[in-house]
Amino acid sequence: MIRHPAFTTEPWTVRECRLHTDVLAQTESVFALSNGHIGLRGNLDEGEPYGLPGTYLNSFYELRPLPYAEAGYGYPESGQTVVNVTNGKLIRLLVDDEPFDVRYGTLHSHERLLDLRAGTLIRTVRWSPPTGVEIRMRSTRLVSYTHRAVAAIRYEVEPVDQPVNVVVQSELVANETVPTAAADPRAAAALEAPLVLEENATGSDGMCVMVHSTRASRLRVAAAMCHEVDGPGGTRVDSDGGGDVSRVTVATRLRPGERLRLDKFFAYGWSAKRSRPAMHDQVVAALAAARLTGWDGLCAEQRAFLDDYWAGADVEVEGDAEVQQAVRFGLFHLLQAGARLERRPIPGKGLTGSGYDGHAFWDTESFVLPVATYTYPRAARDALEWRASILPLAEARAELLGLGGAAFPWRTINGEECSGYWPAGTAAFHVNADIADAVTRYVDATEDTAFEGDAGLPLLVATARLWCALGHHDAEGRYRIDGVTGPDEYSAVSDNNLYTNLMARRNLRAAAATAVRHLDRAGQLGVTLEEIAVWRDAAAAMYLPYDERLGVHAQSEGYTGHAVWDFENTRPDQYPLLLHFPYFDLYRKQVVKQADLVLAMHLCGEAFTPEQKARNFAYYEALTVRDSSLSAATQAVLAAEVGQLGLAYAYLGEAALIDLRDLQHNTRDGVHMASLAGAWIALVSGFGGLRAGEGRLCFAPRLPSEITRLTFRVRYRGRLLRVDVTSEDTTYRLLHGSPVSLAHHGETLTLGGRPQSRSNPSPPFPELRITQPPGREPPSRRPAIP
Amino acid sequence: MIRHPAFTTEPWTVRECRLHTDVLAQTESVFALSNGHIGLRGNLDEGEPYGLPGTYLNSFYELRPLPYAEAGYGYPESGQTVVNVTNGKLIRLLVDDEPFDVRYGTLHSHERLLDLRAGTLIRTVRWSPPTGVEIRMRSTRLVSYTHRAVAAIRYEVEPVDQPVNVVVQSELVANETVPTAAADPRAAAALEAPLVLEENATGSDGMCVMVHSTRASRLRVAAAMCHEVDGPGGTRVDSDGGGDVSRVTVATRLRPGERLRLDKFFAYGWSAKRSRPAMHDQVVAALAAARLTGWDGLCAEQRAFLDDYWAGADVEVEGDAEVQQAVRFGLFHLLQAGARLERRPIPGKGLTGSGYDGHAFWDTESFVLPVATYTYPRAARDALEWRASILPLAEARAELLGLGGAAFPWRTINGEECSGYWPAGTAAFHVNADIADAVTRYVDATEDTAFEGDAGLPLLVATARLWCALGHHDAEGRYRIDGVTGPDEYSAVSDNNLYTNLMARRNLRAAAATAVRHLDRAGQLGVTLEEIAVWRDAAAAMYLPYDERLGVHAQSEGYTGHAVWDFENTRPDQYPLLLHFPYFDLYRKQVVKQADLVLAMHLCGEAFTPEQKARNFAYYEALTVRDSSLSAATQAVLAAEVGQLGLAYAYLGEAALIDLRDLQHNTRDGVHMASLAGAWIALVSGFGGLRAGEGRLCFAPRLPSEITRLTFRVRYRGRLLRVDVTSEDTTYRLLHGSPVSLAHHGETLTLGGRPQSRSNPSPPFPELRITQPPGREPPSRRPAIP
Repeated sequence: MIRHPAFTTEPWTVRECRLHTDVLAQTESVFALSNGHIGLRGNLDEGEPYGLPGTYLNSFYELRPLPYAEAGYGYPESGQTVVNVTNGKLIRLLVDDEPFDVRYGTLHSHERLLDLRAGTLIRTVRWSPPTGVEIRMRSTRLVSYTHRAVAAIRYEVEPVDQPVNVVVQSELVANETVPTAAADPRAAAALEAPLVLEENATGSDGMCVMVHSTRASRLRVAAAMCHEVDGPGGTRVDSDGGGDVSRVTVATRLRPGERLRLDKFFAYGWSAKRSRPAMHDQVVAALAAARLTGWDGLCAEQRAFLDDYWAGADVEVEGDAEVQQAVRFGLFHLLQAGARLERRPIPGKGLTGSGYDGHAFWDTESFVLPVATYTYPRAARDALEWRASILPLAEARAELLGLGGAAFPWRTINGEECSGYWPAGTAAFHVNADIADAVTRYVDATEDTAFEGDAGLPLLVATARLWCALGHHDAEGRYRIDGVTGPDEYSAVSDNNLYTNLMARRNLRAAAATAVRHLDRAGQLGVTLEEIAVWRDAAAAMYLPYDERLGVHAQSEGYTGHAVWDFENTRPDQYPLLLHFPYFDLYRKQVVKQADLVLAMHLCGEAFTPEQKARNFAYYEALTVRDSSLSAATQAVLAAEVGQLGLAYAYLGEAALIDLRDLQHNTRDGVHMASLAGAWIALVSGFGGLRAGEGRLCFAPRLPSEITRLTFRVRYRGRLLRVDVTSEDTTYRLLHGSPVSLAHHGETLTLGGRPQSRSNPSPPFPELRITQPPGREPPSRRPAIP
Repeated sequence: MIRHPAFTTEPWTVRECRLHTDVLAQTESVFALSNGHIGLRGNLDEGEPYGLPGTYLNSFYELRPLPYAEAGYGYPESGQTVVNVTNGKLIRLLVDDEPFDVRYGTLHSHERLLDLRAGTLIRTVRWSPPTGVEIRMRSTRLVSYTHRAVAAIRYEVEPVDQPVNVVVQSELVANETVPTAAADPRAAAALEAPLVLEENATGSDGMCVMVHSTRASRLRVAAAMCHEVDGPGGTRVDSDGGGDVSRVTVATRLRPGERLRLDKFFAYGWSAKRSRPAMHDQVVAALAAARLTGWDGLCAEQRAFLDDYWAGADVEVEGDAEVQQAVRFGLFHLLQAGARLERRPIPGKGLTGSGYDGHAFWDTESFVLPVATYTYPRAARDALEWRASILPLAEARAELLGLGGAAFPWRTINGEECSGYWPAGTAAFHVNADIADAVTRYVDATEDTAFEGDAGLPLLVATARLWCALGHHDAEGRYRIDGVTGPDEYSAVSDNNLYTNLMARRNLRAAAATAVRHLDRAGQLGVTLEEIAVWRDAAAAMYLPYDERLGVHAQSEGYTGHAVWDFENTRPDQYPLLLHFPYFDLYRKQVVKQADLVLAMHLCGEAFTPEQKARNFAYYEALTVRDSSLSAATQAVLAAEVGQLGLAYAYLGEAALIDLRDLQHNTRDGVHMASLAGAWIALVSGFGGLRAGEGRLCFAPRLPSEITRLTFRVRYRGRLLRVDVTSEDTTYRLLHGSPVSLAHHGETLTLGGRPQSRSNPSPPFPELRITQPPGREPPSRRPAIP
């Protein structure tokens, strides 16, 4: 955990003013750069010291066997693990024969700055070797949004007041030593030397190319680098290489006022099919294009890309500078994860670390894509087209399991199930409804009918068929879905999980409605009107467990009859509970790891009355320990909806600051994409009250006392809206697009060229008293005033 | 599977008239000899060919890591595997320079005969080498019941009609090559060369001693052998040895009418604590005692021991010679498994093979010990004293799981949990109630108050405390036990499993009653009258799920609302289902692997009315596929009780013939102790209707038409009873002990010196129609008439 304020609080930057080597792995994640295709952890240029060296390419993985003490039918035999590929960000520096290393000599100053508008990581250093003269070094690093295969570094060195001999070695290095993963199952399995060398070539023009492949997954990766060097006369440039290293060496003597500048361009490509020569040429060509654009060009394109993004995505928070910074930091990482996906998944950690083995989960569809849908919809489309591309694997998995339709993997890189514990993996079939819901949301927000017909319909049909294979009607005519696992990982394999049943109902209805809109295409998928009727009937009869005695919905059938966890006798050091208690005991008791029924109330709010929401929220708050990062944001949304604005504010802080404060103690493995998305969700769906669907945006804004003004933007069906919320009222502006009808606290208004303002009603349920399990209250924050 | 009649049908022997090399592994299990301490598989004397070489010592194991794709709190890190120890049964034969090997030369005849009254395995062979003269060989093997550490072989060779040179090599061999275990998780994990040599000594007197130890479990094993040789003049005896082999070589020339006879005595000992010299001396001493008794003495003691056993255990079946043989075969193996336990467990396979890694399960308490209790109670006491000896480990396990009392392992050798899949392991807490029930049954049948106070009370108290940790009262005041797994392995982790709740209720009541009988000792265990009251209250409030609509009990809460398995579309080759369908799907549907609620109706019959038993039996019969060997016997008992005598007869055959016919295709890994016990249970508790408890024996005899007379014996509270059942009536005789009161179909009668006869009423519920899932009907048998 980051126990000291590691970063200054600034609206558009994340700045570390001095180097904190105790949290190096955490800051490497925070300062990671990515475009969704390439990911570079914020490792120091010179490579050491490091927390976790990391260079990732989306979907480039190695296979590893999944062992079982007792095997069973349908257990996956091998899993996928993200690979730390060829490191192109390495630049070593020798000053008067002393290697630049922050652990030696004198570090006069060290600053790292992530610029959220420029899309660059800037490092500024003043250092002296043990017995030498002081130098200044500045590096600026970017992963290009506009050149998908390219990253670049500008590296500058200058003496402060005395002449100095300087050697810069810029490298490509494969098979770096990676620290062994901890026993914590959430960390990635270490893979030693996963890359087999196929080619290491250095051209006379200084172009270095390395091609490797993996042993088991049979994937090929190519990396290349080239440089522009600007130094005083007599500067000498050499290249050499061999084995897993390529090296360009620049040697010069600098007098005060002189400067050595190295612009390093490096490119990556990977393929399961293309040949070594083809991959070689591909990365060389990518560098040719990048060089043509040049360093300044890359920087200008980067800023223009971000300007466009922020115009539609920015959220302004007055009254809390920390949250202001955090929500932009989160939106920046979301863009980084999704900017150039192109039919690849968004992993739980993006490309910022090897946590969770680099796998993608349902949180992408349920937390990340909702934000993308209303801010940068292209990422949502790309991620869902990836789901469509792995549909054949999901159908094969369903068949193996004896089911119909498609069963998407609980965790995966390449589309095949990697979960080695089925009660919390395969049985969590809700991932399929979550994908369907993301399809419906994207199509509703974009009217992208081409996508709907090509990718959306097959996804909706296959998932609807899964629910028909999983469910059955009981003697009372209720449609039951038994023995599945909902979002809460402290329960498993229970009957009629309310979240699952509600989301399956929505899935079935969406499939029916979409099939009717695309009857021809549906027919090609074998869908008949009879099948559509079966979907509608199942949806209409869906069983939603409710405890009449307590007057609350049950998370699953019988849940409210279970013993309540003994919170009073659980010590603070026994959280997260899963590391100190057996699943057996967690599953059989009322204790909630993460929002489950509460998430259902957010996503399927129409299924509950306001009074039910208030009662349910109070009931489940007292059971929820938030041992997952997928909880605080949802609790913020429902807290806001039932009028608990102070509580919502506390949860907002927890979601937003998860990585800048390392609240879950595992930011070292990568940032938490879903929780970062949760900051936007807490602000926009929580305090803004945004709900959308069936062509209509609904808002219900209300601010906590700590936030004096909240401004956010929403992209919806070709429009760009801006919503300004104050404690008293809300002003809606149409920044772009044709007039649109929307709802403010249930009142319909039509928004055209003129802004419209409405007052915010006071919060409902003032009498509601909410408690959390002892010691699990969200930390109360006082807002940081800038 | 044994597809041909491998054995002749004889009342007191199991005879194989010619060698069936295709089922060698199966016959090695069938012909295994054991005294509960030493186990020798029926491997051919000369060692080859073999199915699975096997020499076992009870509780001698090696550790192996248990791997997990995703680890969790409380998962056992290592498991125990039974070790194939030093092979002392190896005797090689060279005839005129040709090694005797049944695969070469001419095998004129080959017979193996297991004599159930002599306790010996006799092999008789006539063989000629490829170009040689015919010899006769006969070996007689025994594992002594009276000398716990000793086994012996009499090996005899003679020429038929021409002189022959004969060399016999008698060996001790450690670290034999064992075939790699199949992918079937039920087979043992192969351990390569598990024994590390500590000593290999050959004395001038021909005494050979080998001492080894294991690497991880740090156990030490000693084996020794010595011989008595009787041959014509000029017979030469040499010994040599080295590494993992000790060898005594006997060379002679035999003329027709001459014979070489070798009496081999070998002994074993193991210890976790004793030194190499101590172990050396221990086995040499054991041989000294055996030699003093001599071969004839060992055989005489063996027969006397068995005579005494059969006097109290024999079951006579008229009308079905196969069942007659099978029930005696089963009782013989039960005795072999339990004769000389002395605080060691009875594994699921006894000491007849390495199946299930040599682990002991709940079936010992629930199937094997009930038979032992009424036939050879010393074995029941020994096995339960083993449970008492591992109570500290079970208490530590409970503490690790956050529970109170004791949580006995689901599968173990040394007392520590070895289950690597908790939903079907740790969660099956009923094992604790099963142990408690075995204690109660043993004490009821023997009035062994010393055992009750010393071992029984601590076991009952610790298990009662477990149920108090596992259960809770709900708002309606019902005592619930949520999230546990019952006997049926096609369900898991469900609420209020009826079997578990009934058995826990019995456990709680037995603990209360026993604590009151031993208040002082209970006080030493911290038991107060308040705690006893808590046990009684929990028992009184125990929740027993019942489906009012269907009029049947539910296997667990909500069970009867689940979808019924699609039996119609399940192909015959898809059984056992667990190898073709995921647990996920099995758990969520109504499909029963093995008697669960039906077992509850056997063991806790008092909790059901006769009408409920009939309705429940009919309901669950239609769901039960018997993919487990722990089912047919129980189904036979309930079928008999509800009047379905023909069905009970079919189930009897399935239980009794499991190993003689290899019905489960895995007799190669060892015989099925629980199913063999099931033959007795089906006959005595099924057709004899035996139930006992609270000082009273109850019978309700009724025979199926195929069985014309059934005679069985019961040991109870110092008495020996004999019960003769015909189709019309039943005659009770007191063979030994003071007069006793018993019940015949509910009628109380006092049995003294005079036999008493009563007529058997006709079966109840003549209108009851019972069906099984399609294709899962028990095979109908026509009785084999001798």
